[in-house]
Amino acid sequence: MIDHMWLEPNVVRDAVRDEVFFLDVSAVGEDARSLRIRADIAELLERPCVTDERDSTVRLMARPSVLESDEGFAIDVADGVTEITGNTTRALIYGFYDWMRRRMLGGTIDERIVSIPSQPIRMIDHWDQTDGSVERGYAGESIFFGRWNSNEHHEYLEFPERGDSDVFRGDMARIEAYARFLASVGINAVSLNNVNVRGVAIRLITHPWLDRVAQIARIFSEYAIDTYLSVNFAAPKIIGGLDTCDPLDPAVNAWWRRTVDDIYAMIPDFGGFVVKADSEGEPGPFSYGRDHADGANMFARALEPHGGRVIWRAFVYDCHMDWRDRTLDRARAAYDTFRPLDGRFEANAILQVKFGPIDFQPSEPLSPLIGAMRHTNLIVEFQITAEYLGHQIDVNYMLPQWLASLDTDTGYDADTAVTVPAYLPLAAVDRRNIGYAAVANIGMDDNWTGHKLAQANLYGYGRMCWDGSLTADAIAREWTSLTFARTDDEARETIEWMLDTSNATYESYVAPLGVGFMVKRENHYGVGVNDFEYDRWGTYHYSDRDGTGVDRTVATGTGYIGQYAPRIAAALEDAGTCPDDVLLFFHHVPYTHVLHSGKTVIQHIYDTHFAGVEAVDDYIRRWDGLRGRIDDATFENVAERLQRQRRNAIEWRDQINTYFHRMSGIPDSHGRSIHR
Amino acid sequence: MIDHMWLEPNVVRDAVRDEVFFLDVSAVGEDARSLRIRADIAELLERPCVTDERDSTVRLMARPSVLESDEGFAIDVADGVTEITGNTTRALIYGFYDWMRRRMLGGTIDERIVSIPSQPIRMIDHWDQTDGSVERGYAGESIFFGRWNSNEHHEYLEFPERGDSDVFRGDMARIEAYARFLASVGINAVSLNNVNVRGVAIRLITHPWLDRVAQIARIFSEYAIDTYLSVNFAAPKIIGGLDTCDPLDPAVNAWWRRTVDDIYAMIPDFGGFVVKADSEGEPGPFSYGRDHADGANMFARALEPHGGRVIWRAFVYDCHMDWRDRTLDRARAAYDTFRPLDGRFEANAILQVKFGPIDFQPSEPLSPLIGAMRHTNLIVEFQITAEYLGHQIDVNYMLPQWLASLDTDTGYDADTAVTVPAYLPLAAVDRRNIGYAAVANIGMDDNWTGHKLAQANLYGYGRMCWDGSLTADAIAREWTSLTFARTDDEARETIEWMLDTSNATYESYVAPLGVGFMVKRENHYGVGVNDFEYDRWGTYHYSDRDGTGVDRTVATGTGYIGQYAPRIAAALEDAGTCPDDVLLFFHHVPYTHVLHSGKTVIQHIYDTHFAGVEAVDDYIRRWDGLRGRIDDATFENVAERLQRQRRNAIEWRDQINTYFHRMSGIPDSHGRSIHR
Repeated sequence: MIDHMWLEPNVVRDAVRDEVFFLDVSAVGEDARSLRIRADIAELLERPCVTDERDSTVRLMARPSVLESDEGFAIDVADGVTEITGNTTRALIYGFYDWMRRRMLGGTIDERIVSIPSQPIRMIDHWDQTDGSVERGYAGESIFFGRWNSNEHHEYLEFPERGDSDVFRGDMARIEAYARFLASVGINAVSLNNVNVRGVAIRLITHPWLDRVAQIARIFSEYAIDTYLSVNFAAPKIIGGLDTCDPLDPAVNAWWRRTVDDIYAMIPDFGGFVVKADSEGEPGPFSYGRDHADGANMFARALEPHGGRVIWRAFVYDCHMDWRDRTLDRARAAYDTFRPLDGRFEANAILQVKFGPIDFQPSEPLSPLIGAMRHTNLIVEFQITAEYLGHQIDVNYMLPQWLASLDTDTGYDADTAVTVPAYLPLAAVDRRNIGYAAVANIGMDDNWTGHKLAQANLYGYGRMCWDGSLTADAIAREWTSLTFARTDDEARETIEWMLDTSNATYESYVAPLGVGFMVKRENHYGVGVNDFEYDRWGTYHYSDRDGTGVDRTVATGTGYIGQYAPRIAAALEDAGTCPDDVLLFFHHVPYTHVLHSGKTVIQHIYDTHFAGVEAVDDYIRRWDGLRGRIDDATFENVAERLQRQRRNAIEWRDQINTYFHRMSGIPDSHGRSIHR
Repeated sequence: MIDHMWLEPNVVRDAVRDEVFFLDVSAVGEDARSLRIRADIAELLERPCVTDERDSTVRLMARPSVLESDEGFAIDVADGVTEITGNTTRALIYGFYDWMRRRMLGGTIDERIVSIPSQPIRMIDHWDQTDGSVERGYAGESIFFGRWNSNEHHEYLEFPERGDSDVFRGDMARIEAYARFLASVGINAVSLNNVNVRGVAIRLITHPWLDRVAQIARIFSEYAIDTYLSVNFAAPKIIGGLDTCDPLDPAVNAWWRRTVDDIYAMIPDFGGFVVKADSEGEPGPFSYGRDHADGANMFARALEPHGGRVIWRAFVYDCHMDWRDRTLDRARAAYDTFRPLDGRFEANAILQVKFGPIDFQPSEPLSPLIGAMRHTNLIVEFQITAEYLGHQIDVNYMLPQWLASLDTDTGYDADTAVTVPAYLPLAAVDRRNIGYAAVANIGMDDNWTGHKLAQANLYGYGRMCWDGSLTADAIAREWTSLTFARTDDEARETIEWMLDTSNATYESYVAPLGVGFMVKRENHYGVGVNDFEYDRWGTYHYSDRDGTGVDRTVATGTGYIGQYAPRIAAALEDAGTCPDDVLLFFHHVPYTHVLHSGKTVIQHIYDTHFAGVEAVDDYIRRWDGLRGRIDDATFENVAERLQRQRRNAIEWRDQINTYFHRMSGIPDSHGRSIHR
């Protein structure tokens, strides 16, 4: 049986058990979305939808131009009747599920609610591959691709090259359930396939594969979600028979235009393309002496007549770095590459920038590109799948880290702080074309996310996109209340507490103070202090017997700090004012350097790594108290993963502490046992 | 075109161009081996074999009991006639190829030569898998298994489980050529399949797979080579339908007897079984509360009526060690496990012991089990495939290391040194059942071994087995003269010099002073100083800011040194008398510890790692001078690999030097550049 996540039918039905619905779309016309609402009322809620408005208690009404936003909605309650209104049927989808959530949470609506999404683009990126595997997937196989009923937990090892016309799983009921989950938290865009596009995945934009993509897109469309595809820049050569992919070549442009026209003939509300180009071995415009703006704009022009967008990833860096050369700095790459292109992208081209300058580490500063670009549409990229955050084995509720990043001053304004959500529209060329994207964390596992509590990240990501005012705690409370509606308050508090503390707990036992990347190189899980230290990926910690950390100062280091606005750079440049949590990201300091906390770096390392294991022990103890108070499947799932997390945390504690003790020779001031 | 290794037909034919052969096997009867000699005279030598002895110049004569050994031979030359005599047709195979080698080397035979093999068992173990891959193979796919003509250079990643009845490659011409190579250097036993026996490989001992094994065995048999198979201890359950594999269970014994009887019905001269049990996850007698002697003797009793042998690997250790516990020591494992079983093995059971206590590292002491066992048949195991010795990318002629190990005092006698070859018969229960085994280094690559010069290891291993008096230099000279017969003396000297120095060169730039295992954990090639440091394999170096190495002393360490005889232990226990090349294997010493060479440990590390790259540069320079003087394929093959070796040596130099510089803080006394 598939997990119902935060839409447990019994809970939903209980919450709306007395309601009678009425849907008025006469002003906009019946469409796939209004029909979907009717179906969900009938099948999910098992409630009537009447034809006479006066018989109803809940009225969903599409009224063009009633609000400023075509996605926002209003809820009014008067005389026992609820009115949910919006300009479009899209808006009604969001209003309908938002109202349901409020009912499930047990709140009452006392005054008019108007809800407008914070971000225009609220996207999920799947790194699913046509062989059914998921790059960096930790919850089983792809729900889109693969063989029917197959769910081998093979490690992702390579990008499939094998050709095959029948690569679709065909599990439409699961896709429908997934689309409902996404819509219920406000997601409006999904990309189906991995950005590393190889083999038959390159052909998804052509027949007959496109016909199957259209079937999936149709389901998402019912839930107001636009479908995107990742494309291979070299497709004109690989599948088009051309001898170039030069973005300024007329034949190449014509090929993409024809291909895009074909797609829109099949999928009228197709979202557009996601492109990873000239990055980690993928082809791109550099081969033809063109730059990323040339590349992106070629796609933008092909998509523009249909209202489509091209989303161009800024994750471009040299992945063959020489560890010997301390002047090189991977953190500099996105800014160095894209800052000079500011203002050159078409209005329907969007640059997708990871929130940190490296790659979704447990602690990273905000990317300096966010703030520096002033005439470019940006999407900020997050990673819900826990590549560096515990593989959905270790509990890790990511919202605290994401929201803290978004709340960072971008340095856009010389005088006052401008956070990321405030900044994006200021820099935009077209304010409709900004937002957030995040890599999916779901798969064929029964509970969708491997670790039950990892559902909270998917839920929370959607909520964060829609409502920028929510705190991480508030979102955790929402998710827990919806998901564990049938248990007692104390149990819910335990779960909320685990979620709220989990991100900090995980960060406490992995690479310290923002230095990052002490993971095993084969899969990015578990400890490998030196695994990347002499490798080609540009991710080093430079620890020696005297100190540790990366000198990214302007004065003596790589100069990376100079990419930030002066006010921000000044604070980071001085190890005395640099925040503790990213100290080793910016500075190489002695082990005896004293943090703002008053502890030395070495003592901080010891303390946090002992504390990390203790925190996991606490989780285990308190989770054990939930036995019989929540459903058995969830209890066992989390209990089993907590044991694995404990083993992981112990390995981290012991290896990190031993490594730095062997290096520094400095004993723990509390005299705890550190293995030699 | 397949490489002819050391049996280049033109060279062979030139060497014997005036000879007329006569073969007299009337006293023993014509058999597969005598027919094989006739075929090789006709097809390889293209010379006549006459029926009237008086017309011949070379006479091969089988005369029962003419010598003390059934494998040895005599060569007499008188009045222009050469007589090669032996008790058996097996002996004539060896005599024939030995005489050919002497002729190819240009020597004259002035007095009677009697050649008796030093080792009764001279074996090659293939780690070939039924899917065509070779575990730790660096020369392409298996010559026995896989699809016809396939030779993908995929990394060995896992043990194949897939079932398939048609797993044999069927390239009989290649197997015949290979058997000829082996016989020409005196090999008399070969095991076809990997000791990790999974999937269909478990079924090789049954029909219909056995029928194909018999076809291969028949070819080896013509060249006097006995065929062995590796078996899975759990076969009675997995393929026999029994519910136990208890070696003392009558039904299990009966199953193995029936299986063995079946094999001998198909392969009358079948050699026997190779068994890896209770090791690295393989099943074994421990599951039934039995010990290794119980397990081995079960097979021995089944094989005994047919004259077969069971070869039981002593490579048994805990591969889930806790790096935190410094009292644990993998080096102790073989002795601790097998020393108590001394005297309990049947006369046709043989314990196969790796020459070093860990696993074929570039510098290891002799295993203390060799010398300690006093009533057990032993085979000493070597590894020709260059798992830890450069993957046949880096040139590494291993005979210097192997012969030095064999020349070590085993401590068997309280008063005088007893080398390994002298010791084996003293400890044997049946002196026919001792010898050497080595893991093969060949595959489907055109030159058999990936790196042309790696052929010298296969050649040298056979020669070392047959003639214990040969030096490494002498063997290198033989191989070079045979293989490069058509070039000039100076070119041959260059190649010999590369071979002779290569083992020391490789050792100079990898893990220092016997500490071992600083390789990448995913494939055991290239540098990964800490890759095994916190892992479960029991292979650590314990470097810290003050010193490095493993304390295996009795006084303060793991006590491993106590496994050696007192005379040997005393010398090893004292860091002052312990040989430099294994110092860090036995002792944890400060970086400032002064070696017998007069250098400190840290300066030795720097010096050898700079010197290693310089030596490879020398190889490249001198190899370049061979262009046009040897065949192009070999020139290009070695030139290309030397470039890869250079890159490897540079990485080793820089990572090792940087690692130890960061640790110790001690600068190079010559002021050379060490990256921070």
